[in-house]
Amino acid sequence: MKTKGKPAIILLSGGLDSATVLAIANSQGYACHALSFSYGQRHSSEIDSAKKVAAFLGVSDHVVSTTDLSAWGGSALTADIAVPKQGEDNGIPVTYVPARNTIFLSHALGYAEAIGARDIFIGVNSVDYSGYPDCRSEFIQAFESMANLATKAGVEGDPFTIHAPLLQMTKVEIIKEGLNLGVDYSMTRSCYDPTSEDEPCGACDSCRLRDAAFAELQINT
Amino acid sequence: MKTKGKPAIILLSGGLDSATVLAIANSQGYACHALSFSYGQRHSSEIDSAKKVAAFLGVSDHVVSTTDLSAWGGSALTADIAVPKQGEDNGIPVTYVPARNTIFLSHALGYAEAIGARDIFIGVNSVDYSGYPDCRSEFIQAFESMANLATKAGVEGDPFTIHAPLLQMTKVEIIKEGLNLGVDYSMTRSCYDPTSEDEPCGACDSCRLRDAAFAELQINT
Repeated sequence: MKTKGKPAIILLSGGLDSATVLAIANSQGYACHALSFSYGQRHSSEIDSAKKVAAFLGVSDHVVSTTDLSAWGGSALTADIAVPKQGEDNGIPVTYVPARNTIFLSHALGYAEAIGARDIFIGVNSVDYSGYPDCRSEFIQAFESMANLATKAGVEGDPFTIHAPLLQMTKVEIIKEGLNLGVDYSMTRSCYDPTSEDEPCGACDSCRLRDAAFAELQINT
Repeated sequence: MKTKGKPAIILLSGGLDSATVLAIANSQGYACHALSFSYGQRHSSEIDSAKKVAAFLGVSDHVVSTTDLSAWGGSALTADIAVPKQGEDNGIPVTYVPARNTIFLSHALGYAEAIGARDIFIGVNSVDYSGYPDCRSEFIQAFESMANLATKAGVEGDPFTIHAPLLQMTKVEIIKEGLNLGVDYSMTRSCYDPTSEDEPCGACDSCRLRDAAFAELQINT
Protein backbone atom coordinates (compact mmCIF):
# COMPACT_ATOMS: atom_id res chain seq x y z
CA MET A 1 0.00 0.00 0.00
CA LYS A 2 1.45 3.31 -1.04
CA THR A 3 2.00 6.09 1.45
CA LYS A 4 -0.96 8.42 1.59
CA GLY A 5 -0.50 12.09 0.99
CA LYS A 6 -2.53 15.11 2.01
CA PRO A 7 -5.83 14.61 3.80
CA ALA A 8 -9.05 15.30 1.90
CA ILE A 9 -12.74 15.17 2.78
CA ILE A 10 -14.91 13.10 0.43
CA LEU A 11 -18.68 13.52 0.56
CA LEU A 12 -19.89 9.93 0.26
CA SER A 13 -23.61 9.24 -0.18
CA GLY A 14 -23.54 5.55 -0.97
CA GLY A 15 -24.50 6.29 -4.57
CA LEU A 16 -22.70 5.66 -7.82
CA ASP A 17 -21.26 9.13 -8.28
CA SER A 18 -19.66 9.63 -4.88
CA ALA A 19 -18.18 6.11 -4.89
CA THR A 20 -16.43 7.08 -8.13
CA VAL A 21 -15.22 10.32 -6.56
CA LEU A 22 -13.73 8.42 -3.63
CA ALA A 23 -11.88 6.15 -6.07
CA ILE A 24 -10.59 9.20 -7.97
CA ALA A 25 -9.37 10.94 -4.79
CA ASN A 26 -7.71 7.72 -3.65
CA SER A 27 -6.01 7.37 -7.03
CA GLN A 28 -4.66 10.91 -6.67
CA GLY A 29 -2.96 9.89 -3.44
CA TYR A 30 -5.13 11.74 -0.92
CA ALA A 31 -5.69 10.33 2.54
CA CYS A 32 -9.46 10.20 2.25
CA HIS A 33 -11.79 11.09 5.12
CA ALA A 34 -15.29 10.11 4.04
CA LEU A 35 -18.30 12.07 5.30
CA SER A 36 -21.86 10.75 5.03
CA PHE A 37 -25.13 12.14 6.35
CA SER A 38 -28.11 10.66 8.02
CA TYR A 39 -30.42 13.56 7.21
CA GLY A 40 -33.89 12.10 7.44
CA GLN A 41 -33.86 10.81 3.87
CA ARG A 42 -36.30 8.14 2.69
CA HIS A 43 -33.51 5.90 1.55
CA SER A 44 -31.50 5.62 4.78
CA SER A 45 -30.07 2.29 3.65
CA GLU A 46 -27.73 4.41 1.54
CA ILE A 47 -25.67 4.83 4.72
CA ASP A 48 -25.03 1.08 4.70
CA SER A 49 -23.91 1.36 1.10
CA ALA A 50 -21.60 4.24 2.01
CA LYS A 51 -20.02 2.12 4.73
CA LYS A 52 -19.46 -0.78 2.34
CA VAL A 53 -17.97 1.49 -0.32
CA ALA A 54 -15.68 3.19 2.21
CA ALA A 55 -14.46 -0.15 3.55
CA PHE A 56 -13.94 -1.60 0.06
CA LEU A 57 -12.12 1.34 -1.52
CA GLY A 58 -10.24 2.28 1.65
CA VAL A 59 -10.46 5.47 3.71
CA SER A 60 -8.52 6.98 6.58
CA ASP A 61 -11.75 7.67 8.44
CA HIS A 62 -15.50 7.67 7.86
CA VAL A 63 -17.79 10.01 9.80
CA VAL A 64 -21.57 9.63 9.55
CA SER A 65 -23.08 12.93 10.62
CA THR A 66 -26.68 13.14 11.77
CA THR A 67 -28.48 16.31 10.81
CA ASP A 68 -32.22 16.12 10.40
CA LEU A 69 -33.34 18.03 7.33
CA SER A 70 -36.78 16.43 7.57
CA ALA A 71 -37.46 18.85 10.46
CA TRP A 72 -38.59 21.26 7.76
CA GLY A 73 -39.12 18.98 4.74
CA GLY A 74 -39.64 20.70 1.41
CA SER A 75 -38.52 17.77 -0.76
CA ALA A 76 -39.81 14.42 -2.00
CA LEU A 77 -36.72 12.89 -0.35
CA THR A 78 -37.38 14.33 3.13
CA ALA A 79 -41.12 14.88 3.35
CA ASP A 80 -44.37 13.20 2.43
CA ILE A 81 -44.21 14.16 -1.25
CA ALA A 82 -44.36 11.44 -3.91
CA VAL A 83 -41.17 10.65 -5.83
CA PRO A 84 -41.99 11.05 -9.56
CA LYS A 85 -41.87 7.87 -11.61
CA GLN A 86 -42.86 9.22 -15.03
CA GLY A 87 -39.52 10.63 -16.01
CA GLU A 88 -38.02 14.05 -15.51
CA ASP A 89 -40.15 17.16 -15.62
CA ASN A 90 -38.78 20.36 -16.99
CA GLY A 91 -37.21 22.61 -14.38
CA ILE A 92 -36.07 21.70 -10.90
CA PRO A 93 -37.51 18.34 -9.75
CA VAL A 94 -39.34 17.80 -6.46
CA THR A 95 -36.49 15.52 -5.39
CA TYR A 96 -34.41 18.70 -4.96
CA VAL A 97 -33.66 19.02 -1.22
CA PRO A 98 -33.45 22.71 -0.23
CA ALA A 99 -29.81 23.70 0.28
CA ARG A 100 -28.68 20.08 0.67
CA ASN A 101 -25.31 20.37 -1.04
CA THR A 102 -24.69 23.69 0.73
CA ILE A 103 -25.33 21.97 4.06
CA PHE A 104 -23.17 18.96 3.16
CA LEU A 105 -20.28 21.10 1.91
CA SER A 106 -20.50 23.32 5.00
CA HIS A 107 -20.03 20.31 7.25
CA ALA A 108 -17.20 19.09 5.04
CA LEU A 109 -15.61 22.51 5.38
CA GLY A 110 -15.75 22.35 9.17
CA TYR A 111 -14.38 18.81 9.18
CA ALA A 112 -11.62 19.79 6.76
CA GLU A 113 -10.51 22.80 8.74
CA ALA A 114 -10.57 20.84 12.01
CA ILE A 115 -8.20 18.14 10.69
CA GLY A 116 -5.98 20.38 8.55
CA ALA A 117 -7.37 19.27 5.18
CA ARG A 118 -7.70 21.85 2.41
CA ASP A 119 -9.30 19.66 -0.25
CA ILE A 120 -12.97 18.68 -0.41
CA PHE A 121 -14.41 16.33 -3.03
CA ILE A 122 -18.07 16.23 -4.07
CA GLY A 123 -19.73 14.10 -6.76
CA VAL A 124 -21.97 16.70 -8.33
CA ASN A 125 -22.65 16.34 -11.99
CA SER A 126 -24.32 18.91 -14.20
CA VAL A 127 -24.83 16.75 -17.27
CA ASP A 128 -27.45 14.35 -15.98
CA TYR A 129 -28.74 16.50 -13.10
CA SER A 130 -28.81 19.92 -14.69
CA GLY A 131 -32.08 20.58 -12.90
CA TYR A 132 -30.42 20.84 -9.48
CA PRO A 133 -29.05 24.34 -8.86
CA ASP A 134 -26.48 23.04 -6.36
CA CYS A 135 -24.94 20.66 -8.92
CA ARG A 136 -23.61 23.43 -11.19
CA SER A 137 -20.11 24.85 -11.50
CA GLU A 138 -21.38 28.36 -10.64
CA PHE A 139 -22.48 27.04 -7.27
CA ILE A 140 -19.25 25.14 -6.62
CA GLN A 141 -17.19 28.24 -7.43
CA ALA A 142 -19.35 30.47 -5.23
CA PHE A 143 -19.11 28.00 -2.35
CA GLU A 144 -15.33 27.88 -2.64
CA SER A 145 -15.07 31.69 -2.61
CA MET A 146 -17.38 31.91 0.39
CA ALA A 147 -15.46 29.15 2.20
CA ASN A 148 -12.23 31.10 1.92
CA LEU A 149 -13.83 34.13 3.56
CA ALA A 150 -15.60 32.04 6.23
CA THR A 151 -12.67 30.19 7.74
CA LYS A 152 -9.52 30.81 9.70
CA ALA A 153 -7.47 28.89 7.15
CA GLY A 154 -8.98 30.76 4.21
CA VAL A 155 -8.45 34.16 5.80
CA GLU A 156 -4.90 33.26 6.78
CA GLY A 157 -3.98 32.46 3.16
CA ASP A 158 -4.18 28.66 3.20
CA PRO A 159 -7.27 28.24 1.03
CA PHE A 160 -9.67 25.39 0.46
CA THR A 161 -10.34 23.81 -2.93
CA ILE A 162 -13.68 22.20 -3.77
CA HIS A 163 -13.08 19.39 -6.27
CA ALA A 164 -16.00 18.29 -8.44
CA PRO A 165 -14.31 15.86 -10.83
CA LEU A 166 -17.57 14.52 -12.30
CA LEU A 167 -19.01 17.92 -13.12
CA GLN A 168 -18.82 17.61 -16.90
CA MET A 169 -18.99 13.82 -17.22
CA THR A 170 -21.91 11.73 -18.46
CA LYS A 171 -23.12 8.81 -16.37
CA VAL A 172 -21.47 6.41 -18.82
CA GLU A 173 -18.14 8.23 -18.53
CA ILE A 174 -18.43 8.19 -14.73
CA ILE A 175 -19.02 4.43 -14.62
CA LYS A 176 -16.15 3.75 -17.05
CA GLU A 177 -13.80 5.82 -14.89
CA GLY A 178 -14.93 4.03 -11.73
CA LEU A 179 -14.55 0.57 -13.28
CA ASN A 180 -10.99 1.49 -14.30
CA LEU A 181 -10.33 2.43 -10.67
CA GLY A 182 -11.83 -0.75 -9.23
CA VAL A 183 -15.20 0.49 -7.99
CA ASP A 184 -17.69 -2.33 -7.33
CA TYR A 185 -20.96 -0.66 -8.29
CA SER A 186 -23.01 -3.50 -6.85
CA MET A 187 -22.24 -1.92 -3.46
CA THR A 188 -23.78 1.40 -4.47
CA ARG A 189 -27.39 2.42 -4.58
CA SER A 190 -29.01 5.26 -6.42
CA CYS A 191 -32.75 4.78 -5.95
CA TYR A 192 -34.74 7.67 -4.45
CA ASP A 193 -37.58 5.43 -3.35
CA PRO A 194 -36.59 1.80 -2.66
CA THR A 195 -39.27 -0.81 -2.00
CA SER A 196 -40.01 -2.09 1.48
CA GLU A 197 -37.68 -4.99 0.65
CA ASP A 198 -34.97 -2.39 0.02
CA GLU A 199 -34.90 -3.00 -3.72
CA PRO A 200 -34.48 -0.14 -6.23
CA CYS A 201 -37.83 1.00 -7.65
CA GLY A 202 -36.44 1.05 -11.18
CA ALA A 203 -38.68 3.98 -12.12
CA CYS A 204 -37.45 7.14 -10.40
CA ASP A 205 -35.14 9.54 -12.24
CA SER A 206 -32.11 8.23 -10.40
CA CYS A 207 -32.84 4.57 -11.21
CA ARG A 208 -33.58 5.44 -14.84
CA LEU A 209 -30.31 7.32 -15.33
CA ARG A 210 -28.33 4.57 -13.66
CA ASP A 211 -30.01 1.73 -15.53
CA ALA A 212 -29.70 3.49 -18.89
CA ALA A 213 -25.97 4.00 -18.37
CA PHE A 214 -25.32 0.38 -17.42
CA ALA A 215 -27.45 -0.74 -20.38
CA GLU A 216 -25.39 1.44 -22.73
CA LEU A 217 -22.25 -0.17 -21.31
CA GLN A 218 -23.88 -3.59 -21.69
CA ILE A 219 -23.30 -4.35 -18.03
CA ASN A 220 -25.87 -6.29 -16.04
CA THR A 221 -26.63 -4.85 -12.60
CA MET B 1 -51.20 41.49 18.58
CA LYS B 2 -50.51 42.81 15.11
CA THR B 3 -50.79 40.56 12.10
CA LYS B 4 -47.48 39.00 11.23
CA GLY B 5 -45.99 39.53 7.83
CA LYS B 6 -43.50 37.57 5.79
CA PRO B 7 -41.82 34.56 7.36
CA ALA B 8 -38.16 34.82 8.34
CA ILE B 9 -35.64 32.41 9.86
CA ILE B 10 -33.82 33.70 12.95
CA LEU B 11 -30.68 31.92 14.14
CA LEU B 12 -31.15 31.85 17.91
CA SER B 13 -28.30 30.68 20.11
CA GLY B 14 -29.62 31.62 23.53
CA GLY B 15 -27.06 34.39 23.79
CA LEU B 16 -27.43 38.13 24.09
CA ASP B 17 -26.89 38.98 20.43
CA SER B 18 -29.34 36.59 18.82
CA ALA B 19 -32.05 37.45 21.38
CA THR B 20 -31.69 41.06 20.26
CA VAL B 21 -31.90 40.00 16.62
CA LEU B 22 -35.13 38.12 17.27
CA ALA B 23 -36.59 41.22 18.91
CA ILE B 24 -35.50 43.34 15.92
CA ALA B 25 -37.04 40.92 13.39
CA ASN B 26 -40.25 40.79 15.41
CA SER B 27 -40.36 44.60 15.53
CA GLN B 28 -40.04 44.67 11.73
CA GLY B 29 -43.19 42.56 11.46
CA TYR B 30 -41.68 39.26 10.34
CA ALA B 31 -43.30 35.97 11.34
CA CYS B 32 -40.21 34.60 13.05
CA HIS B 33 -39.14 30.96 12.79
CA ALA B 34 -36.31 30.45 15.28
CA LEU B 35 -33.58 27.91 14.59
CA SER B 36 -31.18 26.68 17.28
CA PHE B 37 -28.51 23.99 17.20
CA SER B 38 -27.44 21.28 19.53
CA TYR B 39 -23.99 20.83 18.00
CA GLY B 40 -21.94 19.20 20.71
CA GLN B 41 -21.07 22.51 22.36
CA ARG B 42 -19.77 22.67 25.94
CA HIS B 43 -22.53 25.00 26.97
CA SER B 44 -25.56 22.98 25.91
CA SER B 45 -27.72 24.78 28.47
CA GLU B 46 -27.81 27.61 25.92
CA ILE B 47 -30.57 25.60 24.22
CA ASP B 48 -32.72 26.10 27.34
CA SER B 49 -32.01 29.81 27.13
CA ALA B 50 -32.97 29.85 23.47
CA LYS B 51 -36.28 28.19 24.31
CA LYS B 52 -37.01 30.75 27.04
CA VAL B 53 -36.12 33.67 24.78
CA ALA B 54 -38.25 32.30 21.92
CA ALA B 55 -41.24 31.80 24.21
CA PHE B 56 -40.85 35.23 25.83
CA LEU B 57 -40.37 37.28 22.67
CA GLY B 58 -42.77 35.21 20.58
CA VAL B 59 -42.08 33.09 17.50
CA SER B 60 -44.16 31.27 14.92
CA ASP B 61 -42.04 28.16 15.36
CA HIS B 62 -38.79 27.06 17.02
CA VAL B 63 -36.74 24.19 15.58
CA VAL B 64 -33.77 22.79 17.52
CA SER B 65 -31.57 20.99 15.02
CA THR B 66 -29.07 18.38 16.17
CA THR B 67 -25.84 18.29 14.20
CA ASP B 68 -22.77 17.05 15.99
CA LEU B 69 -19.77 19.22 15.17
CA SER B 70 -17.80 17.59 18.00
CA ALA B 71 -17.41 14.55 15.68
CA TRP B 72 -14.33 16.36 14.38
CA GLY B 73 -13.66 18.98 17.07
CA GLY B 74 -11.14 21.67 16.23
CA SER B 75 -12.40 24.26 18.73
CA ALA B 76 -12.30 24.99 22.45
CA LEU B 77 -16.11 24.92 22.29
CA THR B 78 -16.40 21.43 20.78
CA ALA B 79 -13.23 19.59 21.80
CA ASP B 80 -10.99 19.10 24.80
CA ILE B 81 -9.19 22.44 24.38
CA ALA B 82 -9.16 24.91 27.30
CA VAL B 83 -11.28 28.06 26.97
CA PRO B 84 -8.92 31.03 27.49
CA LYS B 85 -9.54 33.10 30.60
CA GLN B 86 -6.78 35.69 30.32
CA GLY B 87 -8.41 37.95 27.80
CA GLU B 88 -8.33 37.95 24.04
CA ASP B 89 -5.22 36.96 22.15
CA ASN B 90 -4.32 38.58 18.88
CA GLY B 91 -5.69 36.81 15.83
CA ILE B 92 -8.45 34.22 15.64
CA PRO B 93 -9.24 32.75 19.08
CA VAL B 94 -9.37 29.02 19.88
CA THR B 95 -13.08 29.42 20.58
CA TYR B 96 -13.54 29.77 16.81
CA VAL B 97 -15.54 26.73 15.65
CA PRO B 98 -14.54 25.72 12.10
CA ALA B 99 -17.24 26.80 9.63
CA ARG B 100 -19.87 27.14 12.35
CA ASN B 101 -21.74 30.12 10.95
CA THR B 102 -21.52 28.61 7.45
CA ILE B 103 -23.13 25.43 8.77
CA PHE B 104 -25.80 27.34 10.71
CA LEU B 105 -26.65 29.61 7.77
CA SER B 106 -26.79 26.61 5.43
CA HIS B 107 -29.40 24.95 7.60
CA ALA B 108 -31.28 28.26 7.86
CA LEU B 109 -31.21 28.46 4.06
CA GLY B 110 -32.74 24.99 3.72
CA TYR B 111 -35.39 25.76 6.34
CA ALA B 112 -36.16 29.10 4.66
CA GLU B 113 -36.57 27.62 1.21
CA ALA B 114 -38.71 24.76 2.52
CA ILE B 115 -41.23 27.12 4.16
CA GLY B 116 -41.15 29.88 1.54
CA ALA B 117 -39.13 32.39 3.61
CA ARG B 118 -36.60 34.59 1.83
CA ASP B 119 -35.17 36.40 4.87
CA ILE B 120 -32.60 34.99 7.28
CA PHE B 121 -31.38 36.84 10.37
CA ILE B 122 -28.08 36.20 12.13
CA GLY B 123 -26.57 38.01 15.10
CA VAL B 124 -22.99 38.31 13.93
CA ASN B 125 -21.09 41.32 15.08
CA SER B 126 -17.74 42.45 13.80
CA VAL B 127 -16.99 45.12 16.40
CA ASP B 128 -16.45 42.95 19.44
CA TYR B 129 -15.67 39.69 17.66
CA SER B 130 -13.49 40.90 14.84
CA GLY B 131 -11.31 37.82 15.32
CA TYR B 132 -13.93 35.48 13.88
CA PRO B 133 -13.78 35.30 10.07
CA ASP B 134 -17.42 34.25 9.82
CA CYS B 135 -18.63 37.34 11.69
CA ARG B 136 -17.56 39.82 8.99
CA SER B 137 -19.62 41.54 6.30
CA GLU B 138 -17.42 40.01 3.56
CA PHE B 139 -18.51 36.57 4.70
CA ILE B 140 -22.19 37.50 4.96
CA GLN B 141 -22.17 38.97 1.44
CA ALA B 142 -20.38 35.93 0.02
CA PHE B 143 -22.82 33.58 1.72
CA GLU B 144 -25.79 35.49 0.30
CA SER B 145 -24.34 35.37 -3.23
CA MET B 146 -23.64 31.66 -2.91
CA ALA B 147 -27.13 31.01 -1.50
CA ASN B 148 -28.75 32.57 -4.54
CA LEU B 149 -26.83 30.23 -6.84
CA ALA B 150 -27.43 27.18 -4.63
CA THR B 151 -31.19 27.19 -4.38
CA LYS B 152 -34.25 26.76 -6.53
CA ALA B 153 -35.67 30.06 -5.28
CA GLY B 154 -32.43 31.94 -5.91
CA VAL B 155 -32.04 30.56 -9.41
CA GLU B 156 -35.68 31.27 -10.22
CA GLY B 157 -35.27 34.95 -9.37
CA ASP B 158 -36.77 35.06 -5.87
CA PRO B 159 -33.58 35.68 -3.89
CA PHE B 160 -32.68 35.30 -0.24
CA THR B 161 -31.43 38.14 1.95
CA ILE B 162 -29.12 37.52 4.89
CA HIS B 163 -29.77 40.17 7.54
CA ALA B 164 -27.04 40.92 10.07
CA PRO B 165 -28.46 43.94 11.89
CA LEU B 166 -25.82 43.91 14.65
CA LEU B 167 -22.85 43.84 12.31
CA GLN B 168 -21.58 47.34 13.07
CA MET B 169 -22.97 47.74 16.61
CA THR B 170 -21.01 47.72 19.86
CA LYS B 171 -22.18 45.47 22.68
CA VAL B 172 -23.53 48.52 24.52
CA GLU B 173 -25.52 49.61 21.47
CA ILE B 174 -26.89 46.07 21.06
CA ILE B 175 -28.09 45.92 24.66
CA LYS B 176 -29.66 49.38 24.45
CA GLU B 177 -31.55 48.34 21.31
CA GLY B 178 -32.71 45.11 22.91
CA LEU B 179 -33.90 46.85 26.08
CA ASN B 180 -35.91 49.26 23.94
CA LEU B 181 -37.54 46.25 22.28
CA GLY B 182 -38.33 44.48 25.56
CA VAL B 183 -35.59 41.82 25.66
CA ASP B 184 -35.12 40.29 29.12
CA TYR B 185 -31.37 39.65 29.12
CA SER B 186 -31.57 37.60 32.30
CA MET B 187 -32.88 34.81 30.06
CA THR B 188 -29.81 34.88 27.86
CA ARG B 189 -26.43 33.32 28.46
CA SER B 190 -23.12 34.15 26.86
CA CYS B 191 -20.52 32.12 28.78
CA TYR B 192 -18.29 29.76 26.78
CA ASP B 193 -17.45 27.66 29.83
CA PRO B 194 -20.10 27.65 32.56
CA THR B 195 -19.39 26.03 35.94
CA SER B 196 -20.80 22.65 36.89
CA GLU B 197 -23.58 24.58 38.66
CA ASP B 198 -24.35 26.18 35.28
CA GLU B 199 -23.13 29.62 36.36
CA PRO B 200 -21.18 31.90 33.97
CA CYS B 201 -17.43 31.66 34.55
CA GLY B 202 -17.05 35.44 34.44
CA ALA B 203 -13.61 35.15 32.87
CA CYS B 204 -13.92 33.95 29.27
CA ASP B 205 -13.96 36.48 26.42
CA SER B 206 -17.70 36.23 26.07
CA CYS B 207 -18.38 36.85 29.80
CA ARG B 208 -15.91 39.74 29.84
CA LEU B 209 -17.51 41.48 26.85
CA ARG B 210 -20.97 41.00 28.27
CA ASP B 211 -20.09 42.10 31.78
CA ALA B 212 -18.19 45.16 30.56
CA ALA B 213 -21.17 46.28 28.49
CA PHE B 214 -23.65 45.91 31.34
CA ALA B 215 -21.22 47.71 33.66
CA GLU B 216 -20.94 50.60 31.18
CA LEU B 217 -24.74 50.80 31.11
CA GLN B 218 -24.76 50.63 34.93
CA ILE B 219 -27.07 47.62 34.85
CA ASN B 220 -26.67 44.80 37.35
CA THR B 221 -26.86 41.29 35.87
